[in-house]
Amino acid sequence: MSNASRRPGRHFLQIPGPTPVPDRVQRAMAQPILDHRGPEFQKLAERVLAKSQSIFKTKQPVIIFPSSGTGAWEAALTNTLSTGDTVLMVETGQFATLWKNMAVRLGLVPEFIASDWRSGADVNLIEQHLKADKKHAIKAVCIVHNETATGCRSHIDQVRQALDATGHPALLMVDTISSLGVMDLRHDDWGIDVTISGSQKGLMLPPGLSFTAISEKARAASKTAKLARAYWNWDDMLSNNASGFFPYTPATGLLYGLDVAIDMLHEEGLDNVFARHERLAEATRRAVAAWGLEVLCAKAADYSPAVTAVLMPDGHNADQFRKVALERFDMSLGTGLGKVAGKVFRIGHLGDTNELTIAGALAGVEMALGLAGVPHRKGGVDAAMAYFAQPGGGSAAQAA
Amino acid sequence: MSNASRRPGRHFLQIPGPTPVPDRVQRAMAQPILDHRGPEFQKLAERVLAKSQSIFKTKQPVIIFPSSGTGAWEAALTNTLSTGDTVLMVETGQFATLWKNMAVRLGLVPEFIASDWRSGADVNLIEQHLKADKKHAIKAVCIVHNETATGCRSHIDQVRQALDATGHPALLMVDTISSLGVMDLRHDDWGIDVTISGSQKGLMLPPGLSFTAISEKARAASKTAKLARAYWNWDDMLSNNASGFFPYTPATGLLYGLDVAIDMLHEEGLDNVFARHERLAEATRRAVAAWGLEVLCAKAADYSPAVTAVLMPDGHNADQFRKVALERFDMSLGTGLGKVAGKVFRIGHLGDTNELTIAGALAGVEMALGLAGVPHRKGGVDAAMAYFAQPGGGSAAQAA
Amino acid sequence: MSNASRRPGRHFLQIPGPTPVPDRVQRAMAQPILDHRGPEFQKLAERVLAKSQSIFKTKQPVIIFPSSGTGAWEAALTNTLSTGDTVLMVETGQFATLWKNMAVRLGLVPEFIASDWRSGADVNLIEQHLKADKKHAIKAVCIVHNETATGCRSHIDQVRQALDATGHPALLMVDTISSLGVMDLRHDDWGIDVTISGSQKGLMLPPGLSFTAISEKARAASKTAKLARAYWNWDDMLSNNASGFFPYTPATGLLYGLDVAIDMLHEEGLDNVFARHERLAEATRRAVAAWGLEVLCAKAADYSPAVTAVLMPDGHNADQFRKVALERFDMSLGTGLGKVAGKVFRIGHLGDTNELTIAGALAGVEMALGLAGVPHRKGGVDAAMAYFAQPGGGSAAQAA
Amino acid sequence: MSNASRRPGRHFLQIPGPTPVPDRVQRAMAQPILDHRGPEFQKLAERVLAKSQSIFKTKQPVIIFPSSGTGAWEAALTNTLSTGDTVLMVETGQFATLWKNMAVRLGLVPEFIASDWRSGADVNLIEQHLKADKKHAIKAVCIVHNETATGCRSHIDQVRQALDATGHPALLMVDTISSLGVMDLRHDDWGIDVTISGSQKGLMLPPGLSFTAISEKARAASKTAKLARAYWNWDDMLSNNASGFFPYTPATGLLYGLDVAIDMLHEEGLDNVFARHERLAEATRRAVAAWGLEVLCAKAADYSPAVTAVLMPDGHNADQFRKVALERFDMSLGTGLGKVAGKVFRIGHLGDTNELTIAGALAGVEMALGLAGVPHRKGGVDAAMAYFAQPGGGSAAQAA
Repeated sequence: MSNASRRPGRHFLQIPGPTPVPDRVQRAMAQPILDHRGPEFQKLAERVLAKSQSIFKTKQPVIIFPSSGTGAWEAALTNTLSTGDTVLMVETGQFATLWKNMAVRLGLVPEFIASDWRSGADVNLIEQHLKADKKHAIKAVCIVHNETATGCRSHIDQVRQALDATGHPALLMVDTISSLGVMDLRHDDWGIDVTISGSQKGLMLPPGLSFTAISEKARAASKTAKLARAYWNWDDMLSNNASGFFPYTPATGLLYGLDVAIDMLHEEGLDNVFARHERLAEATRRAVAAWGLEVLCAKAADYSPAVTAVLMPDGHNADQFRKVALERFDMSLGTGLGKVAGKVFRIGHLGDTNELTIAGALAGVEMALGLAGVPHRKGGVDAAMAYFAQPGGGSAAQAA
Repeated sequence: MSNASRRPGRHFLQIPGPTPVPDRVQRAMAQPILDHRGPEFQKLAERVLAKSQSIFKTKQPVIIFPSSGTGAWEAALTNTLSTGDTVLMVETGQFATLWKNMAVRLGLVPEFIASDWRSGADVNLIEQHLKADKKHAIKAVCIVHNETATGCRSHIDQVRQALDATGHPALLMVDTISSLGVMDLRHDDWGIDVTISGSQKGLMLPPGLSFTAISEKARAASKTAKLARAYWNWDDMLSNNASGFFPYTPATGLLYGLDVAIDMLHEEGLDNVFARHERLAEATRRAVAAWGLEVLCAKAADYSPAVTAVLMPDGHNADQFRKVALERFDMSLGTGLGKVAGKVFRIGHLGDTNELTIAGALAGVEMALGLAGVPHRKGGVDAAMAYFAQPGGGSAAQAA
Repeated sequence: MSNASRRPGRHFLQIPGPTPVPDRVQRAMAQPILDHRGPEFQKLAERVLAKSQSIFKTKQPVIIFPSSGTGAWEAALTNTLSTGDTVLMVETGQFATLWKNMAVRLGLVPEFIASDWRSGADVNLIEQHLKADKKHAIKAVCIVHNETATGCRSHIDQVRQALDATGHPALLMVDTISSLGVMDLRHDDWGIDVTISGSQKGLMLPPGLSFTAISEKARAASKTAKLARAYWNWDDMLSNNASGFFPYTPATGLLYGLDVAIDMLHEEGLDNVFARHERLAEATRRAVAAWGLEVLCAKAADYSPAVTAVLMPDGHNADQFRKVALERFDMSLGTGLGKVAGKVFRIGHLGDTNELTIAGALAGVEMALGLAGVPHRKGGVDAAMAYFAQPGGGSAAQAA
Repeated sequence: MSNASRRPGRHFLQIPGPTPVPDRVQRAMAQPILDHRGPEFQKLAERVLAKSQSIFKTKQPVIIFPSSGTGAWEAALTNTLSTGDTVLMVETGQFATLWKNMAVRLGLVPEFIASDWRSGADVNLIEQHLKADKKHAIKAVCIVHNETATGCRSHIDQVRQALDATGHPALLMVDTISSLGVMDLRHDDWGIDVTISGSQKGLMLPPGLSFTAISEKARAASKTAKLARAYWNWDDMLSNNASGFFPYTPATGLLYGLDVAIDMLHEEGLDNVFARHERLAEATRRAVAAWGLEVLCAKAADYSPAVTAVLMPDGHNADQFRKVALERFDMSLGTGLGKVAGKVFRIGHLGDTNELTIAGALAGVEMALGLAGVPHRKGGVDAAMAYFAQPGGGSAAQAA
């Protein structure tokens, strides 16, 4: 153990969010406080509200709450539903489970499609449930786009097709907290009614803002929805936002940062951003395979570009291993959550990061596996490097 | 009008919050993101939760939500009350009114004591209502400690006495959003059950955190309260906080800032902080009197140390005047809210500020009154200076 | 005396430089270190070198040393002169005296025109000296544009005329350390050969950079000048700068800040910047007059827009008074230097500042005069306000 | 080539300085400007001057100039020597050569011991020169502790022994610009007379400060030294520093940073800091060996813990390779300087860095070698990892 009170160099923050805040965003947030009822703030608010639409790929309004993403879950449910309403949810992992638990607390009746946490939402099962619901008791289908706990993505466009195929009128609600700014998300094209997100992952901001893109259909539903809502009331937000203001004090510092963070995503190019995440994820999985370890996500089509959950060999505790990585190499890896606690560790490769940082992180994992006595083969970093250094690979090439 | 796109020097932010963030707090917030499930964050969380108690003067838990203060209003009501419960509220101004409106939305039944917005809560009226409530239908008494919209304070210790005198078991809930860190507040001594606050006023942080100090009695009430709550659930917070964590991603950047902001309050000394605010407020009122204008707060005992609302002479619009101050002197003054819109402007003198800044601000008001053609006498700044420069006055003397 | 360890609010830094760094410049300087031999740095260097020319109003090269302004004095002398050369210098105050002392140390022979420190350089005397120098022994005329120690400006265009009128070939060297970005300065139009400046005054940066604009004639002189020079060698700088690099490691952080600081000056408009400084200076002098005190500068045409030095009444020590201002009001005033030590205090009104800040500072002076027992009349702030609030005055009007 | 205007993630700055500034130092530097003649600055100056001694391991004064390290070279020579004096210098590489060139410019007569740039100073040759100098014409021996251009260190304690063994009275001057805070340096114990350094390497600050530790003997020499000096005059510095001030405006922002940077070195522990650098250097050399490439430093005892220069295979240009690393992986490597231009690239592993960052950097080098078509073997990162992950290795173990 070290007796030194300082760790030199940069901490490697390889959790699946919050992600490292780029110094440019950090600097933007340090701008002086301004009057949130004055003309300068008004311009800022109008600008970031408009820019946010570009990230959700929507022409419809995006609401920004001063809250964690969890708050936007609550807003989605309370603004559109009434006590006793059925919602179809899929147990993709811990976060889907928490959202389901919230629905129960709010007086809703979730129909919860069970899963082994090793894939994204099963669209066939969703379609079966929708078909079976002849009376349209299901008022909303709620899907987590990228399950941060498992590293599995769900295919929202296919869920939309299932709704269309069955002619089911339920609202489609999607949690994109760890997918926005990481993989493609098309609020309008995919016919999503409520898209929920947060500031602290692909948007490269500190936690503290939640986002909600809302369809016309969702707004219509809010007119008759009976669940109580005050802080989360969309109407108050939308009516105030219309003139560049907020119904209560917004988190101005984070809005300054948002203004710049979205610029940065566009400067890189959204498609380049997505390709970069896919590349970092693929390199990570190749390293895992080289180590002879198994990725939690068992379905290749559902691999997450944001985070890779790695199964520990039997008899080895993931958190013991994570402790070695933290203490010896000053690297934070994601813990296993809920029913995979102790059984997986997660490597975050999302947000403002790049190949060499991931190479360094994978080196840390490879060395820590050895030091922690976890059975594995060498060669993980080599496999990642071989992939990164392909002539056609690399960020430069992708961006060409 | 200026055609220059830059205003030189410091903006004078004389609104009653958000207040200027000290650069030391700003720097603290710029620390790198850390793993909110790791040991370092745990230490930070335990530290700021403990420090927060010192500001509320309580030994009981303080909850920190990532939200505006409005969120803590909702948490206070939903955690302790059930649909149809009566709450006694006092119309001290716009914020009391908004809280009352929220109660209605949540299915509660406010008994709302009307007021002309020119004083704090009338304790006699409160006592009458409590006495009249033989059956103890009133489950909570909700008071705004400092009405940011009017510049009137309420006397919470007297409200406590009214509850005690009448033997009424209602919970006492107090909004200290613009009073915490500005004037004395004693959660435990005054027998408050729920004290609500926000980060962006006396705590000198950007907006984005709300605070709630909770008594044993309030926690007991939460066991039987029936209003739905998920994001705002105190129990989830308290059980997670017990080990230094949060049920969902906290606003880590603001917590870094909070850690330092509370240190700064203690370095100055809470009593010195309160005395400084009283002194800045008194100087401001002397300036207003010298100008021959009237302070909205009509009761000297209720004068706010945080903000002074000034009545415009008949026929003069406060927002027109504020526009002159902003455009000519780059100073933001507070607008009149709700039923005093256009009739008052507000001078904020709270947070990280001092005599010379207030002298500069009062000079700006005095000059803008002239330029805007508002009838007034000169001599406001002189009156403030005469007060500040009293041999026994000044921050040094106060702190001696 | 205060026992508190923290002073609330903003320190009033009313010294004649270093001046407060705008937070936007502060943020720019916080950008990550970059390779000072790489292409990105090259672009930055080329940009700031070009922008610097716009501030000196020159098409000729501007050299940036990592040094205080004193270093550029040395560079000016060593690059153009040889041991035993005569230089004509004018004792406008402490800084002119220090420059003269440096010349002596470097083996030069200053002809030093004495002065009572109450005006800028006397152009008639300069012309007499030039006329008398039939053999052109004088190789350079060295003038301090704005004497920071006295608050007197010299008229460089008139010095140029004196050189031209006498047909004297001496180089004209001007120290603009406290005038650049404060009052007009025209390196090319005024035929200056070496213009020297620093980062920490009108340029709104921290100290650490010096600037030198160089004429063709000065560069020619450097070919034959014999004084030893290595660090200060212009040729090394110019040849490296030609491709965007430096002969040794430049102060990259300050260059980042410079990039933005010059933008800010242009956004405000140089003429607006100059008018603002004149206005703040005039208001300050009106306050001094109202107090019944005397400005050190005895010649109205030479009043400095950057700093006003105020004479203390007999029997009163300026530094005692300054101590009161600092301890009671957290305001730093400039001390008297050299032969006016203890006899004057200086009010800086340069850099990133504005009317309300100066009003607050003048209030601080007025109150501190009273507390320190310095005989004076009230009404200084009133006089400043009366001036600032003239219908045609104010920054907005000036900028119109 | 990328058409994207933004590079995601952290730039890998692997040059041998300037090194990445830790965010904690960056934040310290962002403190507001203060009066450099006031009591608060005085305390800061006294503190950093005292702390600086702890880094040089000296009880003698340390001078801090606002300049690059090159300035301190000049100060060392001009304060202690007179025109025509002989100085013994060793051509360890480009920086030793530049210092020699400076000596020539200043009128000194260097005796320059030639070298092939592949080792540190040859102490036997130094001793021979000293012995041969019966008349003690040599007034100073000037050594570069760590040649940044070659990655070779010199052994200062042995040079001291050579001086002692020969009874030679010459001053010992050492350039520690890239060694201070990286490897052990003992100004007092090693009998160094002038130790020169800079802020931007092991001290983890931006460039802009130079440091000079001075022995009694060097101060005595300055009494009779005849070279002209003004800006660089030690006496002015020492007499002003005695009361916590400076003869001209110091670079206050960097002094704020220095205050914290030295704390950070002590928090880690100087011995831990040195061990960390040795470890990062050893891992780098193992990678180079695994690649089948050659390190420029040909003498193991002279390997630098700060930087490793790598020889390119014949026919391959180092700068072409560096361009690939920069464009494809956003990593800056050091260029070859002077007579090894194009023939070597340099990997900086000094300052605020750690194992995973170096692992990432080495991965970048390994991949770029392949992409640039430079003949090499794979396995460099593996070799580094094998070394880092030794049970007894790692920073934690070293610090135990």
